[in-house]
Amino acid sequence: MLFDTLTIVGVGLIGGAIGLAAKQRGIVGRVVGVGRDRARLQTALELGAIDAIALDLAQGVRDADCVLFAAPVDRIAEQALEAAAFCRRGAILTDAGSTKQAIVERVEAGLPGHVRFVGGHPLAGSEKKGVEHARADLFIDRLTVLTPTERTDAEAVARLRDFWQALGARVQVMTPAEHDRALALTSHLPHLLASALAGILPAEWAALTATGFRDTTRIAGGDPALWTPIFEQNRAALLDALDQLDARLQQFRAALNTADAHAIDSLLFQGKRMRDALGS
Amino acid sequence: MLFDTLTIVGVGLIGGAIGLAAKQRGIVGRVVGVGRDRARLQTALELGAIDAIALDLAQGVRDADCVLFAAPVDRIAEQALEAAAFCRRGAILTDAGSTKQAIVERVEAGLPGHVRFVGGHPLAGSEKKGVEHARADLFIDRLTVLTPTERTDAEAVARLRDFWQALGARVQVMTPAEHDRALALTSHLPHLLASALAGILPAEWAALTATGFRDTTRIAGGDPALWTPIFEQNRAALLDALDQLDARLQQFRAALNTADAHAIDSLLFQGKRMRDALGS
Repeated sequence: MLFDTLTIVGVGLIGGAIGLAAKQRGIVGRVVGVGRDRARLQTALELGAIDAIALDLAQGVRDADCVLFAAPVDRIAEQALEAAAFCRRGAILTDAGSTKQAIVERVEAGLPGHVRFVGGHPLAGSEKKGVEHARADLFIDRLTVLTPTERTDAEAVARLRDFWQALGARVQVMTPAEHDRALALTSHLPHLLASALAGILPAEWAALTATGFRDTTRIAGGDPALWTPIFEQNRAALLDALDQLDARLQQFRAALNTADAHAIDSLLFQGKRMRDALGS
Repeated sequence: MLFDTLTIVGVGLIGGAIGLAAKQRGIVGRVVGVGRDRARLQTALELGAIDAIALDLAQGVRDADCVLFAAPVDRIAEQALEAAAFCRRGAILTDAGSTKQAIVERVEAGLPGHVRFVGGHPLAGSEKKGVEHARADLFIDRLTVLTPTERTDAEAVARLRDFWQALGARVQVMTPAEHDRALALTSHLPHLLASALAGILPAEWAALTATGFRDTTRIAGGDPALWTPIFEQNRAALLDALDQLDARLQQFRAALNTADAHAIDSLLFQGKRMRDALGS
C-alpha cells in the first residue's frame, strides 16, 4: 500500500485513469474524487475510479496522504495552494499538468511548510475527454516526468516514483524548464500544427481527406479549454519550437521552389528515419 | 464480370490491394501482375493478388481489357505510353497515382488512338509498402477520384466508375487540376508537415513523445521514393498550400506573442470544429 488515502482533484480522463489504475492494482487504500460537478463524480464512482465524492476541496483533501491535481493547467497551482492549508502534515501534493514551470514556480512560492509538492506529468492522454474514456491501462509502458527542484523533498519524489511505476509507467526526472522545452516540441507544437492544418481545410474538400490527414490532425479534436492554458503557460518554448519548424519548412520550400528532387528526398528521408525510430 | 483480363503494373500495397479485391469480388476474370522483380510478383501470386506474372510490359498488357498503373507517379506516364503500343483496340488504361495533372497531360499528349486513358486516384494507402501489406478491404467506403478531360472517352469513365464501386469505393469526378489543388492540402501538405515535425525531433527527446506526436507524424514513415516524385509533380499547388498553412501559423504566432488567450482559443476551436466534422 503506497498511500492510504489518495485524493484526485479533477476526475476526468487522466484523473479517472489514475484512480482506476491505483484501485485495480491495490496500491492505495481509498481514492477520494474532488470536483465541482456531482453528476460527473457520480459517474466516476460508478465506474470504479473513486471510492468517495467531495464537492468541497478542504473536506476532500483532509485525510489524504497524497493529493493529485489533474485539472486544466491554469487551475492547478491555485488549487494546490488552496488545498495545502487543509492537508495533513507531510502530505504529498503532485499534479498531472502538461506544463511544469509556471505551476511549480507558483506553488513553491506559496506552499506552507507542513506539506510537500512535486510537479508531475504523465505523457498519456487522448483527444477524448471525461472519465467515461478513462482506462486503467493508460499509463502502462508510458513515461511520467517528475520535475523536482532544489527545494523539493527527495522522499516525496521517491514515493511518487514508486507510485507511477506501480501504475505501469516509466519515470524520468527533469527540471521544470527542461520538461517545458521538450514538451513544447513533442506535444504542444504537434497540437498547434494539427489544429492549424485542420483549421485551413475548406469544408468542400473534407471528403478528399484520407488516413494521412486524419492521423495528422487527430489531436486537433482535443478540448481548447485544456489546450489554450497549456499554450499560454508554455508560450515562450512553444514559439521557439515553432521557429525550429519554420526553419524546416523553409528548407522544404526552397527545395520545392527549385524542384530540387535530391533535397526533397533528403528532407523526407531524415523525417522518415526519425519517425521509424519511434516505432508505431 | 467487368473486365476479362485486368493487368496491374506495379503490384505493391495499392496494386496488390486492387488485385486482391477484384479477384475476391469476382469482377475480373484474370489479373496479370507486371513488375521488374520476380520475387515480389511471386509473393503477390502466392497472396492471391494476381493470377499470372509478367516481367515484360508488352507481354503483360497484350490481352488486357484494362491496364492499371500503380507505380510511383514519376513512372506512370512513361509506362502507359510504352504499354499503349502493345494494347488491344479499345483497351482502357488508368492509374492510381497521387498526382494527376502531370500524368494526364503527358499521357494525353502521346496516347495512340486505339486505346483510352482515364486518370484515377484511390484515396487509400498506408505508410507501409509492399504487397505483403495489401488488404482486399482497402477501398471500402473510401473515395476514388477519376479525372477525365474533354478528350476522355465517356464510356471508359463509366466502366472505371463501375469498377471502383464494385471494389467498395465511392467515386468522384474532378479535373486533374482540381484534384491536384485539393490533394496538395489534404494529402501532400500533411505529409510534408509530418516529415518536417519528425525531422526536427532531437533524438534525446524521442522518449518524451506520446500518442499526439506519433499520430501527427505517422505518415512521415512513408517511402521517400514514392513521395519525392509526388512533391515534384505537384510542387506549385503544394507551395500554395504551404502558404495557406504559413498564414495560419502566423495567426498562432501573433496570438502567442501577445498572450492573447481569446485568440488562441478561437484558433484551436476552429481546428477542432473542422476535425470533429471529419470523424475518426
